[in-house]
Amino acid sequence: MSQKDVPVRPEARLPKGLFDVPAGEIRATALMLDQIRKVFESYGFEPLDTPAIEYTDALGKFLPDLDRPNEGVFSFKDDDDQWLSLRYDLTAPLARYVAENYQTLPKPFRRYQVGPVWRNEKPGPGRFRQFTQFDADTVGAASVAADAELCMLAADALEALGVPRGQYVVKVGSRKILDGVLERIGLTSADTAKHLAVLRAIDKMDRLGADGVKALLGKGRKDESGDYTKGAELSLEQIEAVLGFVQAESGDRGQTLSILASLVDGASAGEAGANELAAMNELLAASGYGDDLVRIDPSVVRGLEYYTGPVFEAELIAPIVDDRGQSIRLGSVASGGRYDGLVERFTGEKVPATGISIGVSRLLYGLKTLGKLPVETAPGPVVVLVFDRDRIGDYQRMAKTLRDAGIRAEVYLGSSGMKAQMKYADKRGSPCAVIQGGDEKAKGEVQIKDLVLGATLTSIKDRDEYLKQQAEAQFAVPEEKLVEAVKGVIARHQA
Amino acid sequence: MSQKDVPVRPEARLPKGLFDVPAGEIRATALMLDQIRKVFESYGFEPLDTPAIEYTDALGKFLPDLDRPNEGVFSFKDDDDQWLSLRYDLTAPLARYVAENYQTLPKPFRRYQVGPVWRNEKPGPGRFRQFTQFDADTVGAASVAADAELCMLAADALEALGVPRGQYVVKVGSRKILDGVLERIGLTSADTAKHLAVLRAIDKMDRLGADGVKALLGKGRKDESGDYTKGAELSLEQIEAVLGFVQAESGDRGQTLSILASLVDGASAGEAGANELAAMNELLAASGYGDDLVRIDPSVVRGLEYYTGPVFEAELIAPIVDDRGQSIRLGSVASGGRYDGLVERFTGEKVPATGISIGVSRLLYGLKTLGKLPVETAPGPVVVLVFDRDRIGDYQRMAKTLRDAGIRAEVYLGSSGMKAQMKYADKRGSPCAVIQGGDEKAKGEVQIKDLVLGATLTSIKDRDEYLKQQAEAQFAVPEEKLVEAVKGVIARHQA
Repeated sequence: MSQKDVPVRPEARLPKGLFDVPAGEIRATALMLDQIRKVFESYGFEPLDTPAIEYTDALGKFLPDLDRPNEGVFSFKDDDDQWLSLRYDLTAPLARYVAENYQTLPKPFRRYQVGPVWRNEKPGPGRFRQFTQFDADTVGAASVAADAELCMLAADALEALGVPRGQYVVKVGSRKILDGVLERIGLTSADTAKHLAVLRAIDKMDRLGADGVKALLGKGRKDESGDYTKGAELSLEQIEAVLGFVQAESGDRGQTLSILASLVDGASAGEAGANELAAMNELLAASGYGDDLVRIDPSVVRGLEYYTGPVFEAELIAPIVDDRGQSIRLGSVASGGRYDGLVERFTGEKVPATGISIGVSRLLYGLKTLGKLPVETAPGPVVVLVFDRDRIGDYQRMAKTLRDAGIRAEVYLGSSGMKAQMKYADKRGSPCAVIQGGDEKAKGEVQIKDLVLGATLTSIKDRDEYLKQQAEAQFAVPEEKLVEAVKGVIARHQA
Repeated sequence: MSQKDVPVRPEARLPKGLFDVPAGEIRATALMLDQIRKVFESYGFEPLDTPAIEYTDALGKFLPDLDRPNEGVFSFKDDDDQWLSLRYDLTAPLARYVAENYQTLPKPFRRYQVGPVWRNEKPGPGRFRQFTQFDADTVGAASVAADAELCMLAADALEALGVPRGQYVVKVGSRKILDGVLERIGLTSADTAKHLAVLRAIDKMDRLGADGVKALLGKGRKDESGDYTKGAELSLEQIEAVLGFVQAESGDRGQTLSILASLVDGASAGEAGANELAAMNELLAASGYGDDLVRIDPSVVRGLEYYTGPVFEAELIAPIVDDRGQSIRLGSVASGGRYDGLVERFTGEKVPATGISIGVSRLLYGLKTLGKLPVETAPGPVVVLVFDRDRIGDYQRMAKTLRDAGIRAEVYLGSSGMKAQMKYADKRGSPCAVIQGGDEKAKGEVQIKDLVLGATLTSIKDRDEYLKQQAEAQFAVPEEKLVEAVKGVIARHQA
């Protein structure tokens, strides 16, 4: 074959920021999603699915990456030259769905949706280009009772997942109060660019701390990679006012509300926002969600442009303590808020709406750190070994007999010898292997090899004990007792 | 506002071939997927997830749409100018995954995967641009025992879904036998284009019948829309030979195998293929899968280019009979086959593999037609009505009490009056509404309104009976008996 004829082979690899998910993580995620689904259903939310692809103009551009307004989403042209995008969240498609089906929907409309979303961003630690969100939204409810309910829902979901009280907190802020504070320092919402710059600076409080936010509110900030982010260019006095607001959390909802009310005194949007949070506080208290579960925290503003009222985040706190004696924060695992303008984009009519979105991988990672990862305890499949290649039909029948009795079972389908087959069964996590060679066949028997017990044999020092255990680890039974014997072995190792 | 200032509103609509999925279909699909998952797991398959986006070259181009080799997939460029595509099936990503992780995988590697795939095709009835597949594949098993097992798996999955025997059939064909037949009429596989044209003509047998296939094997065919498909340009004699092969199914696996053996006599690829199907026949028979469940049917060839050996389809047959007395075919709900070259594309090393893919929406539609659609019987949420807007906190606490007792419950969150709220509860499918006005509050009571019973009241003619039923349909209980009373109403209407 000449050099030219050598076929060009594609490399087996994934684009950056995209990942395969192994079996264990899939099973844990499924169990987690089931728990969340039960809580969402218990609140009366109904499932909805929308496709991955939408018209770009229908999704709109609300991602926090102000510097690259055309980036952040994966986009491509349809045959008729219209722009299509992969959804970057589940909220924008919901707004499209509601606008399209408004007449026939029950109002308020409560829906939940779980599925992947895509962001065409620079991937990094914990930042992926595909990730899964699990959202609950109430559309058509102007009352902050709907917002309060979503905070309760988030707390209930974390409780259902086994996160103990004190290891999670739901934090509530308000876009309207922020607007009020900015109004009082002479920044009106008409100055959209500066407004957004302030918003996104505050949103980085968790990651950058007060000094980083201060820099972003002022001239700007260079990050570790050397990238420079231009600041909001506020005056020192303005910066102090904003930081005072951001750090007004007191640990007591009533007290925090008093501070916030004083900060927005006379600014009408801000006063409305403070009244909303006060109403939420009462509703939360009436249903038994105290200061330990839900906090009022003005530093919560969220980066997405479309929020218009209360905004919230649920955060996990690890029982691990850092050098300064502070509990380690795993960061927000759910977030959301009120977005009263998103359906109006399409219809021109006000449709109030609020929602919350759980970051599924982030939550899974958090549960793992807290030792609360849901684990499925089902064992691997029983492997029927192929001793005699001409008798695969018999072995497949045995596997079927086991399956019909509710036991996971497979025939070894490779071409290797007995030793490799045994290794394979181990690698699959099989509770036992089933073997029938010529001798057993002649006697109408099968050999059962308990792989869990078998693995412990080498550590036994006492000879009699070894022989006794060895006899238990591998034994013959009449073929018609196959199911019974395998069930016995599986039962041995169940907790 | 001047004409220029009127905001341009996007239209709320979806691109063609893409659809939202309502709650009922999501629930039915989830129940169906759970059943399939249990069967796949029982055979020892393990779950795997891969991302929606892959490098275009890693996916390869194996779609049946020969005329548009660059179309059929949604593609776009990454920041570094490399081409990315949305996966068009779950097999190509599996081949990439196996090539990438070959060393660490148990071999054979059994995996299942469920998820959406995308095809950038002209949408039509039953043809979508996003649809869900549920695949099981065995990689690293050269033996047709693996293929036989996938046929059993498909049959078991349909049985688990409640499809009675006689209403489904798994059909098995062979690419090698087809190659043998073509070799005998002077068509070698080196003539790739003609070979593919024949393949795709045969694949349309179900849809176009013998006459349509005849035209496609010859000069070509104009479809109803006026589009012309160029034919394979075979001679009349060649066409007769191909049609003879395609129609060799006899209803008896042994007899069909004899006919096929005679058709490929002397063509080595063909003989190998006939031996493979004979071996599968024996394995199927040994495990009790008779001619009624699995047929040998040479018309099954599948349109995808990458198949190399046995190919299979599972088909549903409706108990409805058409004008000619024939049972109505709902078409194939699962399909697959052996693809021994797909991993080799990356590594240069042969890795035998075989798989089957269930078309999830198609199967759901089929089950619906057969009256076997899985239905969740959980009722809608109990709705706590808002009689007094100042007391939403109390109403939310009642809803919480119900949820804590395992009952779906929500507070009405809209701004309408009692009549609209009652209508809302009906639309949500609520079993009952809970009402507490000032009078009830004073007495420490709640009103329970049984909405199912309430709906039947108007049809009652007898006055005493009406009054009795009316009293049962709406009644007051002490607030602390809320859970008990609601449970009683739900129990009334459970089958």
